[in-house]
Amino acid sequence: MTKITNIPIKIQDPSTTKTFIDKFDTFLFDCDGVLWLGSHLLPLVVETLEYLKSVGKQLLFVTNNSTKSRTQYVKKFAGFGIHVTEDQVFTSGYASALYVRDFLKLIPGQDKVWIFGESGIKEELKLMGFESLGADDSRLDEPFDIATSPFLENGLDPQVKAVIAGLDTKVNYHRLAISLQYLLNPEIQFVATNIDSTFPQKGIILPGAGSAINSLAYASDRTPEACGKPNLNMLNAIVKAKGLDRSKCCMVGDRLNTDIKFGETGGLGGTLLVLTGIETEERALDVTLEHPAPKYYTSKLGNLYEYTH
Amino acid sequence: MTKITNIPIKIQDPSTTKTFIDKFDTFLFDCDGVLWLGSHLLPLVVETLEYLKSVGKQLLFVTNNSTKSRTQYVKKFAGFGIHVTEDQVFTSGYASALYVRDFLKLIPGQDKVWIFGESGIKEELKLMGFESLGADDSRLDEPFDIATSPFLENGLDPQVKAVIAGLDTKVNYHRLAISLQYLLNPEIQFVATNIDSTFPQKGIILPGAGSAINSLAYASDRTPEACGKPNLNMLNAIVKAKGLDRSKCCMVGDRLNTDIKFGETGGLGGTLLVLTGIETEERALDVTLEHPAPKYYTSKLGNLYEYTH
Repeated sequence: MTKITNIPIKIQDPSTTKTFIDKFDTFLFDCDGVLWLGSHLLPLVVETLEYLKSVGKQLLFVTNNSTKSRTQYVKKFAGFGIHVTEDQVFTSGYASALYVRDFLKLIPGQDKVWIFGESGIKEELKLMGFESLGADDSRLDEPFDIATSPFLENGLDPQVKAVIAGLDTKVNYHRLAISLQYLLNPEIQFVATNIDSTFPQKGIILPGAGSAINSLAYASDRTPEACGKPNLNMLNAIVKAKGLDRSKCCMVGDRLNTDIKFGETGGLGGTLLVLTGIETEERALDVTLEHPAPKYYTSKLGNLYEYTH
Repeated sequence: MTKITNIPIKIQDPSTTKTFIDKFDTFLFDCDGVLWLGSHLLPLVVETLEYLKSVGKQLLFVTNNSTKSRTQYVKKFAGFGIHVTEDQVFTSGYASALYVRDFLKLIPGQDKVWIFGESGIKEELKLMGFESLGADDSRLDEPFDIATSPFLENGLDPQVKAVIAGLDTKVNYHRLAISLQYLLNPEIQFVATNIDSTFPQKGIILPGAGSAINSLAYASDRTPEACGKPNLNMLNAIVKAKGLDRSKCCMVGDRLNTDIKFGETGGLGGTLLVLTGIETEERALDVTLEHPAPKYYTSKLGNLYEYTH
């Protein structure tokens, strides 16, 4: 375990808030647990985002949730009365599609992708011109039978060059079995949207993307390349797309092992942990944890508005 | 990797066969890949088993398949024209039920077990007087919804003291999510029938019990106690139940990392690898493998009959 020498600064009054805000020109926000909890908007979030915009800050949104596309995310924001544009939103599904195209060099219109996951990944791939298989195809909802699965009938699709796996609440043996058939071919790349072990929802802890992905990893004896936070592929893609100066950026999140690790290992100027998600003040201050401590922490994002008004 | 100094002996003629058979009074057989492949009986298996019985050998059957109960297994044998009784059959589901009762000391009629797996586990628990929840309950086939799941409606069942997880081709998010809720309580024991990563069926490789179990292990950050081969809990239970002299026993199987490891680390007098399942002669002779080599190997079980008649 690494000894952390910098004690996180608590933002709890107008003076610490002003100093904090002045240090950065771009804020990257995790969404669930920071802006909202599922379908419940957290207090003073709209006011805080409006305020930061009004003082000239750039706002970006970075989520490991791959079930929705960026277009669907923009709609979710709008439903809360927050106006954002698609180019402000980065999802792990989008990051995975970028990885497949820009790093693995798969060719749109020629190479295909098998998806274990929901529609968010498929939509991002489609926008890049990739054909995908699997995902929410309703034929995969049928019980698995080797003799009748339409995905085995004429053999596997030889144009599939990568498997992208993410959170899929429609997980079943059919989806796992066909995904495994592709993964048994070592020439087909194995990409994970993210490896979060859990997915907090409405006060309970549900299995996260990493849970089913680990199931595929164990059966195939392979390790996927994970594209979401804390993997720096995602941060590098954002920095490049927006031409960011890392030293002037602050990552705001509710998870130490994804959001804060992402900001700290990615060399951002700052990280702010909010306590409206899964972490506590005790954990924020626990200097013996294996992952980096945040530079700042505060009870809720809305404090940035509350202490300046 | 361990250097293996004993080269496996190939059974390939009457003389090696006779010497082999004479050394043992009990043979423990894995089933799938040894006696049959799915619903297809392998050649001379009935004749071999009849012959071994006729010369006074005790025959036991040890399988990691937890989807069927011992009663259902006896019927499967009967369908192939092989008469065996329930007390000759040991499944990983039965081993898990024994573990819960005899090692974890759960009390039948009082403590309950949550099952992630098929009916084989439930039936074995029921025979011991345990009430179980989960498994093939058709309400778990419904899509998961926190608000409507009948398994969350009145909270978790406080009488549940263990989760047993095994192969479940009805795996879905509902089953995974509720199993996880129980596993998040560290006082509830986590038991796995077996951790086979794959499940060969009709010439293709499907996800094994260990695949979904690993998904639960990752989400809950826990490691289950695995009861099937190669875990010695199962062997110890068999040795105790049948009063066996280990030096006079031979384990016959088609997998090096489960069957042969089970026999070798369990101190049995012999192990016989047959090549009708997943292993090859090359692997049988690969002395640099991390798991123990078999003492004997032969192309098929039926050779024991063929070379003596």
